[in-house]
Amino acid sequence: MQSEKIILGIDPGTTIMGFGIIKIVKKQMQFVLLDELILNKYDDHYLRLKKIFERTIQLIDAYHPDEIAIEAPFFGKNVQSMLKLGRAQGVAMAAGLSREVTITEYAPKKIKMAITGSGSASKEQVAKMLQSILNLKTLPKNLDATDGLAAAVCHFYNQGRVTGKKSYSGWSSFVKNNEKRIKK
Amino acid sequence: MQSEKIILGIDPGTTIMGFGIIKIVKKQMQFVLLDELILNKYDDHYLRLKKIFERTIQLIDAYHPDEIAIEAPFFGKNVQSMLKLGRAQGVAMAAGLSREVTITEYAPKKIKMAITGSGSASKEQVAKMLQSILNLKTLPKNLDATDGLAAAVCHFYNQGRVTGKKSYSGWSSFVKNNEKRIKK
Repeated sequence: MQSEKIILGIDPGTTIMGFGIIKIVKKQMQFVLLDELILNKYDDHYLRLKKIFERTIQLIDAYHPDEIAIEAPFFGKNVQSMLKLGRAQGVAMAAGLSREVTITEYAPKKIKMAITGSGSASKEQVAKMLQSILNLKTLPKNLDATDGLAAAVCHFYNQGRVTGKKSYSGWSSFVKNNEKRIKK
Repeated sequence: MQSEKIILGIDPGTTIMGFGIIKIVKKQMQFVLLDELILNKYDDHYLRLKKIFERTIQLIDAYHPDEIAIEAPFFGKNVQSMLKLGRAQGVAMAAGLSREVTITEYAPKKIKMAITGSGSASKEQVAKMLQSILNLKTLPKNLDATDGLAAAVCHFYNQGRVTGKKSYSGWSSFVKNNEKRIKK
Protein backbone atom coordinates (compact mmCIF):
# COMPACT_ATOMS: atom_id res chain seq x y z
CA MET A 1 0.00 0.00 0.00
CA GLN A 2 1.10 3.49 -0.82
CA SER A 3 2.37 5.11 2.39
CA GLU A 4 2.07 8.71 1.24
CA LYS A 5 -0.73 10.28 -0.70
CA ILE A 6 -1.48 13.79 -1.89
CA ILE A 7 -5.11 14.87 -2.27
CA LEU A 8 -6.17 17.97 -4.17
CA GLY A 9 -9.62 19.30 -3.26
CA ILE A 10 -11.43 21.69 -5.57
CA ASP A 11 -14.67 23.63 -5.38
CA PRO A 12 -15.09 24.90 -8.94
CA GLY A 13 -17.70 27.63 -8.86
CA THR A 14 -18.47 30.31 -11.38
CA THR A 15 -17.47 33.26 -9.16
CA ILE A 16 -14.69 31.67 -7.12
CA MET A 17 -12.72 28.44 -7.20
CA GLY A 18 -11.58 27.29 -3.78
CA PHE A 19 -8.81 24.71 -3.60
CA GLY A 20 -6.73 22.97 -1.01
CA ILE A 21 -4.13 20.24 -0.76
CA ILE A 22 -3.42 17.78 2.02
CA LYS A 23 -0.74 15.15 2.31
CA ILE A 24 -1.46 11.83 3.98
CA VAL A 25 1.59 10.45 5.78
CA LYS A 26 1.14 7.30 7.85
CA LYS A 27 -2.61 7.77 7.79
CA GLN A 28 -2.28 11.29 9.22
CA MET A 29 -3.30 14.44 7.37
CA GLN A 30 -0.78 17.22 6.85
CA PHE A 31 -1.84 20.62 5.60
CA VAL A 32 -0.14 21.73 2.39
CA LEU A 33 -2.15 24.48 0.70
CA LEU A 34 -5.33 26.54 0.96
CA ASP A 35 -6.09 29.18 -1.62
CA GLU A 36 -8.69 30.61 -3.96
CA LEU A 37 -8.96 31.81 -7.51
CA ILE A 38 -11.22 34.84 -7.83
CA LEU A 39 -13.25 34.53 -11.01
CA ASN A 40 -15.91 37.22 -10.81
CA LYS A 41 -13.36 39.89 -11.75
CA TYR A 42 -13.50 38.46 -15.28
CA ASP A 43 -16.61 39.38 -17.23
CA ASP A 44 -16.00 36.78 -19.91
CA HIS A 45 -17.49 33.38 -19.14
CA TYR A 46 -14.87 31.59 -21.28
CA LEU A 47 -12.01 33.37 -19.61
CA ARG A 48 -13.29 32.10 -16.26
CA LEU A 49 -13.40 28.54 -17.61
CA LYS A 50 -9.90 28.94 -19.01
CA LYS A 51 -8.62 30.19 -15.63
CA ILE A 52 -10.18 27.19 -13.83
CA PHE A 53 -8.63 24.78 -16.32
CA GLU A 54 -5.20 26.41 -16.22
CA ARG A 55 -5.07 26.67 -12.44
CA THR A 56 -6.10 23.06 -12.00
CA ILE A 57 -3.42 21.93 -14.48
CA GLN A 58 -0.85 24.10 -12.64
CA LEU A 59 -1.81 22.57 -9.30
CA ILE A 60 -1.55 19.04 -10.67
CA ASP A 61 1.81 19.70 -12.29
CA ALA A 62 3.21 21.45 -9.21
CA TYR A 63 1.94 19.13 -6.46
CA HIS A 64 1.36 15.82 -8.29
CA PRO A 65 -1.81 14.85 -6.43
CA ASP A 66 -2.66 11.15 -6.44
CA GLU A 67 -6.36 11.92 -6.25
CA ILE A 68 -8.70 14.83 -6.78
CA ALA A 69 -11.85 15.45 -4.75
CA ILE A 70 -14.42 17.83 -6.19
CA GLU A 71 -17.26 19.52 -4.38
CA ALA A 72 -20.14 19.05 -6.78
CA PRO A 73 -23.65 20.24 -5.96
CA PHE A 74 -26.26 18.19 -7.79
CA PHE A 75 -29.02 20.74 -7.37
CA GLY A 76 -29.28 24.43 -8.14
CA LYS A 77 -31.78 27.20 -8.47
CA ASN A 78 -32.39 26.91 -12.20
CA VAL A 79 -31.19 25.30 -15.41
CA GLN A 80 -29.04 28.27 -16.39
CA SER A 81 -27.05 28.27 -13.18
CA MET A 82 -26.63 24.49 -13.40
CA LEU A 83 -25.37 24.71 -16.97
CA LYS A 84 -22.75 27.26 -15.92
CA LEU A 85 -21.82 25.24 -12.85
CA GLY A 86 -21.60 22.09 -15.00
CA ARG A 87 -19.20 23.87 -17.34
CA ALA A 88 -17.03 25.01 -14.43
CA GLN A 89 -16.98 21.45 -13.06
CA GLY A 90 -16.35 20.11 -16.56
CA VAL A 91 -13.20 22.13 -17.18
CA ALA A 92 -11.79 21.24 -13.74
CA MET A 93 -12.58 17.58 -14.43
CA ALA A 94 -10.99 17.82 -17.88
CA ALA A 95 -7.78 19.01 -16.22
CA GLY A 96 -7.78 15.97 -13.93
CA LEU A 97 -8.79 13.57 -16.69
CA SER A 98 -6.10 14.92 -19.02
CA ARG A 99 -3.46 14.22 -16.36
CA GLU A 100 -4.91 10.79 -15.51
CA VAL A 101 -5.67 11.71 -11.91
CA THR A 102 -8.58 9.87 -10.27
CA ILE A 103 -11.53 12.14 -9.53
CA THR A 104 -14.17 11.64 -6.86
CA GLU A 105 -17.02 14.04 -6.36
CA TYR A 106 -18.90 14.81 -3.18
CA ALA A 107 -22.16 16.65 -2.60
CA PRO A 108 -21.79 19.70 -0.30
CA LYS A 109 -23.93 18.05 2.38
CA LYS A 110 -21.67 15.00 2.43
CA ILE A 111 -18.61 17.19 2.87
CA LYS A 112 -20.17 19.13 5.75
CA MET A 113 -21.21 15.87 7.33
CA ALA A 114 -17.72 14.39 7.03
CA ILE A 115 -16.03 17.45 8.55
CA THR A 116 -18.47 18.52 11.26
CA GLY A 117 -20.82 15.58 11.72
CA SER A 118 -23.74 17.68 10.49
CA GLY A 119 -24.93 17.99 6.90
CA SER A 120 -26.40 21.39 7.67
CA ALA A 121 -23.30 22.94 9.28
CA SER A 122 -22.52 26.58 8.45
CA LYS A 123 -19.47 27.67 6.46
CA GLU A 124 -18.02 29.06 9.72
CA GLN A 125 -18.43 25.71 11.48
CA VAL A 126 -16.75 23.84 8.63
CA ALA A 127 -13.91 26.37 8.52
CA LYS A 128 -13.36 26.27 12.30
CA MET A 129 -13.29 22.50 12.26
CA LEU A 130 -10.79 22.46 9.39
CA GLN A 131 -8.64 24.93 11.31
CA SER A 132 -8.67 22.62 14.29
CA ILE A 133 -8.08 19.37 12.37
CA LEU A 134 -5.23 20.74 10.24
CA ASN A 135 -3.74 23.21 12.76
CA LEU A 136 -4.27 26.16 10.44
CA LYS A 137 -2.87 29.40 11.92
CA THR A 138 -5.36 31.59 10.13
CA LEU A 139 -8.48 31.24 8.04
CA PRO A 140 -9.01 33.13 4.78
CA LYS A 141 -11.35 36.12 4.84
CA ASN A 142 -13.48 34.51 2.20
CA LEU A 143 -14.66 31.23 3.67
CA ASP A 144 -15.68 29.95 0.22
CA ALA A 145 -11.98 29.29 -0.27
CA THR A 146 -12.12 26.54 2.36
CA ASP A 147 -14.63 24.44 0.40
CA GLY A 148 -11.94 22.88 -1.77
CA LEU A 149 -9.83 21.96 1.25
CA ALA A 150 -12.94 20.55 2.92
CA ALA A 151 -13.52 18.30 -0.11
CA ALA A 152 -9.97 16.95 0.21
CA VAL A 153 -10.42 16.20 3.93
CA CYS A 154 -13.82 14.60 3.23
CA HIS A 155 -12.17 12.39 0.62
CA PHE A 156 -9.55 11.26 3.13
CA TYR A 157 -12.18 10.43 5.75
CA ASN A 158 -14.35 8.71 3.20
CA GLN A 159 -11.57 6.45 1.99
CA GLY A 160 -10.76 5.44 5.52
CA ARG A 161 -14.32 4.54 6.34
CA VAL A 162 -15.59 3.02 3.14
CA THR A 163 -13.20 0.36 1.92
CA GLY A 164 -13.26 -0.35 -1.75
CA LYS A 165 -15.37 2.69 -2.53
CA LYS A 166 -15.62 3.15 -6.26
CA SER A 167 -14.36 6.46 -7.42
CA TYR A 168 -15.85 8.23 -10.43
CA SER A 169 -19.17 7.12 -9.05
CA GLY A 170 -20.63 10.45 -8.03
CA TRP A 171 -23.44 10.80 -10.50
CA SER A 172 -24.47 7.18 -10.86
CA SER A 173 -24.39 6.51 -7.14
CA PHE A 174 -26.34 9.68 -6.54
CA VAL A 175 -28.99 8.59 -9.01
CA LYS A 176 -29.06 5.12 -7.47
CA ASN A 177 -29.53 6.52 -3.99
CA ASN A 178 -31.92 9.28 -4.96
CA GLU A 179 -34.12 7.81 -7.62
CA LYS A 180 -37.17 9.59 -6.30
CA ARG A 181 -35.43 12.95 -6.61
CA ILE A 182 -34.51 12.55 -10.27
CA LYS A 183 -37.03 13.82 -12.77
CA LYS A 184 -37.32 11.42 -15.64
CA MET B 1 -6.97 38.76 -44.08
CA GLN B 2 -6.51 35.04 -43.71
CA SER B 3 -7.42 33.40 -47.03
CA GLU B 4 -7.97 29.91 -45.64
CA LYS B 5 -9.69 28.95 -42.47
CA ILE B 6 -10.58 25.66 -40.83
CA ILE B 7 -13.67 25.47 -38.61
CA LEU B 8 -14.35 22.59 -36.23
CA GLY B 9 -17.98 22.22 -35.20
CA ILE B 10 -18.92 20.19 -32.15
CA ASP B 11 -22.18 19.11 -30.55
CA PRO B 12 -21.05 17.74 -27.19
CA GLY B 13 -23.91 15.74 -25.77
CA THR B 14 -23.94 13.16 -23.02
CA THR B 15 -24.95 10.22 -25.25
CA ILE B 16 -23.28 11.22 -28.51
CA MET B 17 -20.80 13.86 -29.65
CA GLY B 18 -21.30 14.92 -33.25
CA PHE B 19 -18.46 16.77 -34.95
CA GLY B 20 -17.62 18.11 -38.36
CA ILE B 21 -14.91 20.12 -40.06
CA ILE B 22 -15.13 22.53 -42.96
CA LYS B 23 -12.41 24.46 -44.73
CA ILE B 24 -13.04 27.95 -46.04
CA VAL B 25 -11.07 28.67 -49.20
CA LYS B 26 -11.70 31.96 -50.99
CA LYS B 27 -14.91 32.41 -49.00
CA GLN B 28 -16.22 29.02 -50.17
CA MET B 29 -16.91 26.09 -47.88
CA GLN B 30 -15.23 22.75 -48.49
CA PHE B 31 -16.31 19.64 -46.66
CA VAL B 32 -13.56 17.92 -44.66
CA LEU B 33 -15.05 15.64 -42.03
CA LEU B 34 -18.30 14.44 -40.51
CA ASP B 35 -18.29 11.90 -37.74
CA GLU B 36 -19.62 11.00 -34.32
CA LEU B 37 -18.37 9.67 -31.04
CA ILE B 38 -20.81 7.24 -29.45
CA LEU B 39 -20.83 7.85 -25.70
CA ASN B 40 -23.79 5.89 -24.37
CA LYS B 41 -21.85 2.64 -24.65
CA TYR B 42 -19.85 3.82 -21.63
CA ASP B 43 -21.66 3.55 -18.32
CA ASP B 44 -19.19 5.74 -16.51
CA HIS B 45 -19.98 9.43 -16.64
CA TYR B 46 -16.30 10.38 -16.22
CA LEU B 47 -15.21 8.07 -18.99
CA ARG B 48 -17.64 9.85 -21.31
CA LEU B 49 -16.19 13.22 -20.33
CA LYS B 50 -12.68 11.89 -20.85
CA LYS B 51 -13.61 10.61 -24.32
CA ILE B 52 -15.07 14.00 -25.29
CA PHE B 53 -11.95 15.79 -24.07
CA GLU B 54 -9.56 13.38 -25.78
CA ARG B 55 -11.41 13.34 -29.09
CA THR B 56 -11.59 17.13 -29.18
CA ILE B 57 -7.86 17.39 -28.47
CA GLN B 58 -7.17 14.79 -31.20
CA LEU B 59 -9.27 16.72 -33.71
CA ILE B 60 -7.51 19.99 -32.88
CA ASP B 61 -4.07 18.42 -33.13
CA ALA B 62 -4.89 16.59 -36.38
CA TYR B 63 -6.75 19.34 -38.27
CA HIS B 64 -5.51 22.55 -36.62
CA PRO B 65 -8.83 24.40 -36.69
CA ASP B 66 -8.63 28.18 -36.51
CA GLU B 67 -11.98 28.36 -34.77
CA ILE B 68 -14.37 26.09 -32.93
CA ALA B 69 -18.15 26.38 -33.08
CA ILE B 70 -20.14 24.61 -30.38
CA GLU B 71 -23.83 23.79 -30.40
CA ALA B 72 -24.88 24.80 -26.91
CA PRO B 73 -28.50 24.55 -25.78
CA PHE B 74 -29.25 27.03 -23.04
CA PHE B 75 -32.36 25.26 -21.84
CA GLY B 76 -33.11 21.72 -20.82
CA LYS B 77 -35.66 19.61 -19.09
CA ASN B 78 -34.25 19.80 -15.60
CA VAL B 79 -31.27 20.85 -13.52
CA GLN B 80 -29.69 17.37 -13.55
CA SER B 81 -29.66 17.11 -17.33
CA MET B 82 -28.29 20.64 -17.60
CA LEU B 83 -25.51 19.89 -15.12
CA LYS B 84 -24.47 16.86 -17.17
CA LEU B 85 -24.75 18.80 -20.42
CA GLY B 86 -22.72 21.63 -18.90
CA ARG B 87 -19.99 19.17 -17.96
CA ALA B 88 -19.91 17.74 -21.50
CA GLN B 89 -19.70 21.25 -22.93
CA GLY B 90 -17.10 22.18 -20.31
CA VAL B 91 -14.66 19.42 -21.21
CA ALA B 92 -15.00 20.16 -24.95
CA MET B 93 -14.41 23.84 -24.21
CA ALA B 94 -11.42 22.99 -22.01
CA ALA B 95 -9.87 21.18 -24.97
CA GLY B 96 -10.30 24.26 -27.16
CA LEU B 97 -9.16 26.65 -24.44
CA SER B 98 -6.08 24.54 -23.68
CA ARG B 99 -5.05 24.75 -27.35
CA GLU B 100 -5.84 28.47 -27.57
CA VAL B 101 -8.53 28.02 -30.23
CA THR B 102 -11.30 30.62 -30.32
CA ILE B 103 -14.69 29.19 -29.33
CA THR B 104 -18.08 30.50 -30.35
CA GLU B 105 -21.29 28.90 -29.19
CA TYR B 106 -24.63 28.84 -30.93
CA ALA B 107 -28.07 27.89 -29.68
CA PRO B 108 -29.68 25.00 -31.63
CA LYS B 109 -32.38 27.30 -32.99
CA LYS B 110 -29.81 29.71 -34.38
CA ILE B 111 -28.01 26.85 -36.13
CA LYS B 112 -31.22 25.55 -37.71
CA MET B 113 -32.09 29.08 -38.78
CA ALA B 114 -28.68 29.63 -40.35
CA ILE B 115 -28.78 26.37 -42.31
CA THR B 116 -32.43 26.12 -43.35
CA GLY B 117 -33.91 29.56 -42.78
CA SER B 118 -36.22 28.16 -40.11
CA GLY B 119 -35.48 27.91 -36.40
CA SER B 120 -37.90 25.03 -36.07
CA ALA B 121 -36.51 22.87 -38.93
CA SER B 122 -36.34 19.11 -38.36
CA LYS B 123 -33.08 17.16 -38.11
CA GLU B 124 -33.85 15.69 -41.55
CA GLN B 125 -34.26 19.15 -43.09
CA VAL B 126 -30.99 20.35 -41.59
CA ALA B 127 -29.18 17.20 -42.76
CA LYS B 128 -30.61 17.42 -46.31
CA MET B 129 -29.60 21.07 -46.55
CA LEU B 130 -26.09 20.29 -45.33
CA GLN B 131 -25.87 17.51 -47.90
CA SER B 132 -26.83 19.95 -50.63
CA ILE B 133 -24.57 22.82 -49.47
CA LEU B 134 -21.48 20.66 -48.96
CA ASN B 135 -22.10 18.07 -51.72
CA LEU B 136 -22.10 15.19 -49.26
CA LYS B 137 -22.45 11.84 -51.02
CA THR B 138 -24.16 10.19 -48.09
CA LEU B 139 -25.61 11.13 -44.74
CA PRO B 140 -24.86 9.23 -41.54
CA LYS B 141 -27.54 6.90 -40.21
CA ASN B 142 -27.59 8.81 -36.98
CA LEU B 143 -28.54 12.36 -37.86
CA ASP B 144 -27.35 13.62 -34.47
CA ALA B 145 -23.88 13.32 -35.95
CA THR B 146 -24.65 16.19 -38.33
CA ASP B 147 -25.24 18.71 -35.52
CA GLY B 148 -21.53 19.42 -35.11
CA LEU B 149 -21.07 19.99 -38.83
CA ALA B 150 -24.16 22.22 -38.79
CA ALA B 151 -22.56 24.34 -36.04
CA ALA B 152 -19.44 24.80 -38.18
CA VAL B 153 -21.51 25.88 -41.20
CA CYS B 154 -23.59 28.20 -39.02
CA HIS B 155 -20.37 29.77 -37.74
CA PHE B 156 -19.17 30.40 -41.29
CA TYR B 157 -22.47 32.03 -42.30
CA ASN B 158 -22.58 34.05 -39.13
CA GLN B 159 -19.13 35.46 -39.61
CA GLY B 160 -19.99 36.51 -43.13
CA ARG B 161 -23.13 38.27 -42.06
CA VAL B 162 -22.21 39.85 -38.78
CA THR B 163 -18.97 41.78 -39.09
CA GLY B 164 -17.01 42.22 -35.93
CA LYS B 165 -19.08 39.70 -34.02
CA LYS B 166 -17.54 39.07 -30.65
CA SER B 167 -16.70 35.48 -30.07
CA TYR B 168 -16.78 33.95 -26.62
CA SER B 169 -19.95 35.93 -26.16
CA GLY B 170 -22.52 33.14 -26.05
CA TRP B 171 -23.67 33.35 -22.51
CA SER B 172 -23.39 37.07 -21.91
CA SER B 173 -25.04 37.97 -25.20
CA PHE B 174 -27.76 35.42 -24.52
CA VAL B 175 -28.42 36.98 -21.12
CA LYS B 176 -28.38 40.45 -22.65
CA ASN B 177 -30.87 39.49 -25.34
CA ASN B 178 -33.06 37.36 -23.14
CA GLU B 179 -33.18 39.13 -19.82
CA LYS B 180 -36.80 38.26 -19.27
CA ARG B 181 -36.08 34.56 -19.71
CA ILE B 182 -33.40 34.41 -17.05
CA LYS B 183 -34.57 33.62 -13.57
CA LYS B 184 -32.76 35.82 -11.08
